[in-house]
Amino acid sequence: MSTKPKYTRPLDIKGGRVDMNHGAGGRASAQLIEEIFLRAFDNEFLRQGNDGATLPMPPGLPQGGRLVMATDAHVVSPIFFPGGDLGCLAVHGTLNDVAMLGARPLYLSASFILEEGYALSDLQRIANSMGAAAREAGVPIVTGDTKVVEKGKGDGVFISTTGVGVVAPGVHIGGDQALAGDAVLVSGTLGEHGVAVLSSRAAMEFETSIASDTAALHGLVAALLSSLPAGSLHVLRDPTRGGLATTLNEITRQSGVGMLIDENFIPVLPQVQAACELLGLDPLYIANEGKMVVICASDVAEAALACLHEHPLGKAACRIGTVTVDPHGFVQMQTRMGGRRVVDWLSGEQLPRIC
Amino acid sequence: MSTKPKYTRPLDIKGGRVDMNHGAGGRASAQLIEEIFLRAFDNEFLRQGNDGATLPMPPGLPQGGRLVMATDAHVVSPIFFPGGDLGCLAVHGTLNDVAMLGARPLYLSASFILEEGYALSDLQRIANSMGAAAREAGVPIVTGDTKVVEKGKGDGVFISTTGVGVVAPGVHIGGDQALAGDAVLVSGTLGEHGVAVLSSRAAMEFETSIASDTAALHGLVAALLSSLPAGSLHVLRDPTRGGLATTLNEITRQSGVGMLIDENFIPVLPQVQAACELLGLDPLYIANEGKMVVICASDVAEAALACLHEHPLGKAACRIGTVTVDPHGFVQMQTRMGGRRVVDWLSGEQLPRIC
Repeated sequence: MSTKPKYTRPLDIKGGRVDMNHGAGGRASAQLIEEIFLRAFDNEFLRQGNDGATLPMPPGLPQGGRLVMATDAHVVSPIFFPGGDLGCLAVHGTLNDVAMLGARPLYLSASFILEEGYALSDLQRIANSMGAAAREAGVPIVTGDTKVVEKGKGDGVFISTTGVGVVAPGVHIGGDQALAGDAVLVSGTLGEHGVAVLSSRAAMEFETSIASDTAALHGLVAALLSSLPAGSLHVLRDPTRGGLATTLNEITRQSGVGMLIDENFIPVLPQVQAACELLGLDPLYIANEGKMVVICASDVAEAALACLHEHPLGKAACRIGTVTVDPHGFVQMQTRMGGRRVVDWLSGEQLPRIC
Repeated sequence: MSTKPKYTRPLDIKGGRVDMNHGAGGRASAQLIEEIFLRAFDNEFLRQGNDGATLPMPPGLPQGGRLVMATDAHVVSPIFFPGGDLGCLAVHGTLNDVAMLGARPLYLSASFILEEGYALSDLQRIANSMGAAAREAGVPIVTGDTKVVEKGKGDGVFISTTGVGVVAPGVHIGGDQALAGDAVLVSGTLGEHGVAVLSSRAAMEFETSIASDTAALHGLVAALLSSLPAGSLHVLRDPTRGGLATTLNEITRQSGVGMLIDENFIPVLPQVQAACELLGLDPLYIANEGKMVVICASDVAEAALACLHEHPLGKAACRIGTVTVDPHGFVQMQTRMGGRRVVDWLSGEQLPRIC
């Protein structure tokens, strides 16, 4: 069913080492996950290949609903950046992974790996930001764990969050549900999170007013689900690490389809575009933390856009393209110049530790 | 209801820093959690104060059971130790936290923080160990995440796991359920995990044949639940970081009771006792990863012991004491010498990065 990204060669397990590309969310990450973790843990749920798993209620309990479970490790550097910090990001990132499966998030857990010597005042600031984000989302952090590693064996604070949610009967949303002819929408402008984090790195501070878009999207998902006809919403995914380009490639691969998008319709703030030009980056590969790709039946695309536009987090939503029939699983883009090019997977490292 | 451990003074949030004691599982850990995380995240589930949370089934899912969610960050050093490794430990530790609430574990998630330069062959070994532990336990790892940090910003591999389970109707097990008169049992000999990890540390390698007891306890819990009368099993907890002493103090605090245990009945292997004497450690404070404390109505204590003895993981189970009325929440111990002493919380660091 799926078109695999073409790895030049298998991982060199015997002599190879982890490199930063393995965490960048692109092709190298996918290969590491497939050739080590999927092989070691193999099961039908993990093979769903989404940013979370949709799970049946176990035998012995009354049937009729499904659980969703999603987890993220958060290692963003620096910990505080324009528009957010590690704490709220750890809440939003995991809530969004739950929401992207069409689920209502219910509960969060959080585990902390603290580096000896980290300032308690900063830790409190992070915890308060997490607590505020969780309360604002209406999803409590119900359990946690705290470990401490020696100075020089960590980097301030790492947070892993896991979210559990519930999917209503009849909702079947996932990366493998895209159909040729479907409309491809994005919920807003792209690239703010990545540029905001980059702008605050000591080594490359530059003047910018760009703030991270970090936000919880489950309200927006609930609005779509309640306004569109049952079954018309096929895929939701937040384009985080690796950006829109990587996310679309993941979806074409899972669904066994292609895509054609139009560069003219991809919304990017002028200051993000300018920062990307300055840094030699492509906004299509920059991480977002409060945006989603929406793939739906073409005949509900206008209704979906109208619904997104009514919500504060979807005001700049656009239709950017169409799902196509393509045995190669290519994402192609009509460029502003009038040409057409393949938008490939992120093949190496672009922005390490962006989330 | 609960007797708080007495902190000498509040955390110095303004000028204080994280130290290794904050991760040791004793009094300093409890203070950090209370004064930073509980305040920031406050909600009824987190306030349960167990190593996991018991959660109502949300509307939309079949009613009649409760969910349990537990999470752990695993930073054990070294990553490979006699009897186990980070991978199987990350599975067992979280499965056990779910099981200790009387739940049947259903699903696990795993997030990885990898250090740049870590050998892929070792990563594969860890992943395979996790996969084997999960399969043996019958609980799949359904979703995950992988991040990479720069060399010198991590320590090989850290793994956070989260487990979800279900509790059958009528089962109410938790740290606040101990009643004066209840029997206090342990499922086996104490201290092997901590001594095994210590024995493999480069700086203090010593000759020993002690292997970690790391194991999944949910089968043992299921056996107890099915063999004892409903409602007679009150508390289950695995004495990990901080050991038996810390675990019993947590329980007396949550339940508002005291305890009297008898040193003569606390099972410790002679080689663990010898290693502890060599290292100046007290086995009561050493971490275990495949043992549990069982607190049950006194009249079922014999049946509980018989059930434990029939299971491979409970062969050395013993009754070690009784829950008492004590407004101070003290854990007291009848010593081998015939005296009686208070077994206090672990007050500082004993063994950092033991799990």
